[in-house]
Amino acid sequence: MRKNSIGIGLTGLGVIGGGTVKVLLGKPEALARSTGSQLVLKRVVEIDTTKHGAMGIPRNLFTTKFSDLLNDPDIDIIIELIGGEHPAFEYIQDALTHSKHVVTANKEVMSKHWSELLSLARKHNVALRYEASVGGGIPLIAPFQEDLIANDISAIYAIVNGTTNYILTQMAKEGTDFAVALKQAQELGYAEADPSKDIDGVDAAYKLAILATIAFGTEITPDKVYNEGISRLQARDFRYAKELGYAIKLLAIAKRTDNSIEARVHPVFIPEDFLLAKVDGVYNAIDVEGDLVGKLIFYGQGAGPSATSSAVIADIVSIAQDINRGTITLPKLPSAKGRTVKPMSEIETRYYMRMNVADKPGVLAQISRVLGDHNISISSVIQKERDPSTQLAEIVIMTHRAREKAVQQALEETQHLAVVKEISNFVRVEA
Amino acid sequence: MRKNSIGIGLTGLGVIGGGTVKVLLGKPEALARSTGSQLVLKRVVEIDTTKHGAMGIPRNLFTTKFSDLLNDPDIDIIIELIGGEHPAFEYIQDALTHSKHVVTANKEVMSKHWSELLSLARKHNVALRYEASVGGGIPLIAPFQEDLIANDISAIYAIVNGTTNYILTQMAKEGTDFAVALKQAQELGYAEADPSKDIDGVDAAYKLAILATIAFGTEITPDKVYNEGISRLQARDFRYAKELGYAIKLLAIAKRTDNSIEARVHPVFIPEDFLLAKVDGVYNAIDVEGDLVGKLIFYGQGAGPSATSSAVIADIVSIAQDINRGTITLPKLPSAKGRTVKPMSEIETRYYMRMNVADKPGVLAQISRVLGDHNISISSVIQKERDPSTQLAEIVIMTHRAREKAVQQALEETQHLAVVKEISNFVRVEA
Repeated sequence: MRKNSIGIGLTGLGVIGGGTVKVLLGKPEALARSTGSQLVLKRVVEIDTTKHGAMGIPRNLFTTKFSDLLNDPDIDIIIELIGGEHPAFEYIQDALTHSKHVVTANKEVMSKHWSELLSLARKHNVALRYEASVGGGIPLIAPFQEDLIANDISAIYAIVNGTTNYILTQMAKEGTDFAVALKQAQELGYAEADPSKDIDGVDAAYKLAILATIAFGTEITPDKVYNEGISRLQARDFRYAKELGYAIKLLAIAKRTDNSIEARVHPVFIPEDFLLAKVDGVYNAIDVEGDLVGKLIFYGQGAGPSATSSAVIADIVSIAQDINRGTITLPKLPSAKGRTVKPMSEIETRYYMRMNVADKPGVLAQISRVLGDHNISISSVIQKERDPSTQLAEIVIMTHRAREKAVQQALEETQHLAVVKEISNFVRVEA
Repeated sequence: MRKNSIGIGLTGLGVIGGGTVKVLLGKPEALARSTGSQLVLKRVVEIDTTKHGAMGIPRNLFTTKFSDLLNDPDIDIIIELIGGEHPAFEYIQDALTHSKHVVTANKEVMSKHWSELLSLARKHNVALRYEASVGGGIPLIAPFQEDLIANDISAIYAIVNGTTNYILTQMAKEGTDFAVALKQAQELGYAEADPSKDIDGVDAAYKLAILATIAFGTEITPDKVYNEGISRLQARDFRYAKELGYAIKLLAIAKRTDNSIEARVHPVFIPEDFLLAKVDGVYNAIDVEGDLVGKLIFYGQGAGPSATSSAVIADIVSIAQDINRGTITLPKLPSAKGRTVKPMSEIETRYYMRMNVADKPGVLAQISRVLGDHNISISSVIQKERDPSTQLAEIVIMTHRAREKAVQQALEETQHLAVVKEISNFVRVEA
């Protein structure tokens, strides 16, 4: 039974909230055509009530109390766009408990409180949608859950953080060091004043947790995702990568075997002819591998008010359509049992190692012996710069596939060799 | 009210049909989990009844008569995978009229008989889904109709034909001529014995008609799509393109302005740093531009039994879920009125022209004058090879934006200049 009007309450009038309001107020006819109802913005929770002017929101819609959304019987859908874990988590809980449908872009809350929130939504027979939580406007959640439903997904390789991808692109193209590229990103508004969640890989880990949970049907919380940021990378790593035919990207990687899952975020060398290697600037790209579909890549703007509001509005429209059809699509709980996340020490991949060593014969033999003792075989060694004044040389070693634990132990031992001044960096390689 | 079992009838046991049956028979538990019902293959229409052995289909499911699907009350969904316009169109009509839900991968039927079939499905209150008709396993129809619903889509640039993309990739990488690359594609099974629908751009035009109709909400039939194939391209066009910083791709392009639509399939020069320029081999990629979401690209396998069956099964699952929820998602009819397809002569773009001219002073002045008379300005001219024996030189001209009609007239006139031996090729440029 069709409703003439579907009421919407919104909390969080920041960048994405502003973008969402702009669409709700700016495209009423198109939204009504898509849903069969007027989508009416009923209430906006915002402490700064002066914001309404610039956004063209009638002043009387403003409230400072979230409970005003909960208690308004004309509000069917609550949009949570305040971000951060608290109080967003409690707000979403309250909304679901009050039988309000919820749309959120909150990757932190969704990844950390996944099953609790989904169960709550199911219990109260309401929808909980979060397409905007990963990849901004790029359709991912719905395609994973619907279009790829016949597939067993084996792997995800994703660039899901625009800030770090911008910084890495600058480092690669301009030869700048990390600190310079970060400052530039901050000046352009691509990085926040406190950029730690982005550059440390935390934001990407939230997003990977969501994607991997959906793709593999096993709940993966962010604490299970290994994460390592980009601040150790130096301009010379990019030079050497390029010489070797690789690009460096911060990848969020999830892989499934029969009974275990890898979930990790860290810088990766990828061959420069991979499409992901060509994803530059603030763009995101998500490569997913399914048994039927093979390799699929979704590419687009992973952030920004317009792109993200595209996903928020799609979720609202979907719920409104369901309301009018009299059937609510309840969120799906992870169904696969018995798979555990593999400890990082157990993963296997290839490695790039850069070190400063004594510039004299026999050094490489010593290093190779340590690596060999740990079953790590070298695929190539390149001697880069040598400094006659210090008698040191920089060498770059690329290994064949080896186990992380063995590599860590070998690096620890290598570091203690008299001929090794410093292990300057090591980066995993996916090929 | 949930059904324990949902019956499926299939017509067309070719490559995609075989792939679909493999999934239906191979993943029954997963499909039951997704839908809440057993998806049971009830009947397969196939003249060659010896096929069942290799596919593991019980012999008693085979029939040679399509009417056996129509008259079986246990069949809820009919899958049409025979391809081609007839009798597939009549089969789909019959199925809808018999209140069977239909899933098809048939781009020709869908693009040519769009509104008739959609109206018929709506009239009989059944679903008609066709995700597999464009881009194989790449999710497109559902993302366009659902995830991008808040967007005004302004343009689509798509590589939707794997055969031609394979041929163009070979020509670019190996420097082979068209005939050689085509033969190679045929030997590898990437091109059919009669490859005309692929290489002439007809297949891409069907797919573009479908995507543009959905994206713009205006019915665009294939006869409205300009199409030009790839057989005029020569190895030297790829060499010159590369020197100028371009790749050559067969693009399906649709653009919308307020009251008109461009819809065209033809070879295009695109800057080599565009992601679409990196899409090689049989892969497909669809670039869509929305007012909110900006640029989105979907990349994956556009053909093949597994990838395509991924989309067919997703459609079946979606219908089965709807059946169990007691609500059918009826196909949407195009809603936008008043937009017409712009004649090809009216489009504006940049052009690459290659010609053989007399190798003497003043020739370029004559050609420039003709182009100038038609308001076409030259952005660069390169003299390529010169042949002392014939006194001829090959020149390549790149123009600024110009109108197609003017370019065609100018080329016609240029051809009649005494100093011009031949207009060897011209290709449109998108940048």
